[in-house]
This record gives sequence, C-alpha cells and structure tokens, in this order.
Amino acid sequence: MGNVELEQLREQLDDVNLKLLELINKRAELVQEIGNVKKVQGVNRFDPVRERDMLDLIAEKNEGPFETSTLQHIFKEIFKASLELQEDDHRKALLV
Amino acid sequence: MGNVELEQLREQLDDVNLKLLELINKRAELVQEIGNVKKVQGVNRFDPVRERDMLDLIAEKNEGPFETSTLQHIFKEIFKASLELQEDDHRKALLV
Repeated sequence: MGNVELEQLREQLDDVNLKLLELINKRAELVQEIGNVKKVQGVNRFDPVRERDMLDLIAEKNEGPFETSTLQHIFKEIFKASLELQEDDHRKALLV
Repeated sequence: MGNVELEQLREQLDDVNLKLLELINKRAELVQEIGNVKKVQGVNRFDPVRERDMLDLIAEKNEGPFETSTLQHIFKEIFKASLELQEDDHRKALLV
C-alpha cells in the first residue's frame, strides 16, 4: 500500500524534475538571447539591479513551502550558472 | 528597437522565473509527502541511490544549453534545500 503510494509520488517527482530541467535550459536560452541583444547595444551583460528585481519578484510571489531565502539561494545559483554560460559563449566566440 | 526586444525577452524571463518558482515549491510539497510516507514506513528519508537515479535521469534527458554538470549542481542545491525543509518539519513536529 505505502509502496504503491511512494512509487506514484516518485513518478510525480521525476516528472517535476524533467519539467524543471526543461525550464532551466529554456531560461538559459533566453539569457543567451538577452546577452546577444546587449552585446549589439554594447552594454554590460551583468546587471545587478535587474538581478535584484528578479529576486524581489520571487520574494513577492513565493507561497511556500520553501522559505524565500532558500529560493533566492537556488535562483542565485541559476543566475551564476547563466552568467558562466555567457562567458563560455564569449570565450568560444573569441576562439573562432 | 533593441530595447523593445530586450523588454520582451525580460518579460519572458520573468515568466520562466515564476514557473520555476512554482515548480520548485511543488517539488518541495512532493518531497514532504514522500517524507511522510517514509516516516510511516519507518525508513530513512535520505536515499542516496534515489538521488543518484534522479541525477542520472537529468544527464540522460539534458538537451542543453547548460552542461549536465551545471544542471546537476543546481539540482543538488534543490535536493539539499528539500532535505533541510524536511528536517525543519521534523523539528517543528518534535516541538508540538
């Protein structure tokens, strides 16, 4: 009984993981596009004000169960990875 | 021209951020449910084999642009936060 329930919950969890994977990668593509537009405009790709705004929106919309501080920590990891990805793209572009 | 495009991309990014927020919290609820089932069964809530399986699935399904190692790092942060949330729940239960 409990094992069937556990199995079902785990399937739901795998499903959520894959949706997260898809969204995190979609987010990375958007950040790459934003980086390209900014490059054309000649403005800096890292924008701490914009990052703060995004974290504020997370705080505003958070309904739990995670604490806002926990979510902001996770999002900061995603932001950092996105920035690193742009730096990699930039390095690759320089090598072409 | 570029600014309109930038604004649209940023709106899309906010939208993705909010979907991520929702999914990460949904994931936390599922982990709490799984924790409750396991508690009834008297088994340990931290399961490194299951965690490895989830990371393997991420690796298998990743289509980029993020590297698998980057995604696994982000997911490990989410796993860690989920485990901490369960520990908080456990502590609160002990205090009732």
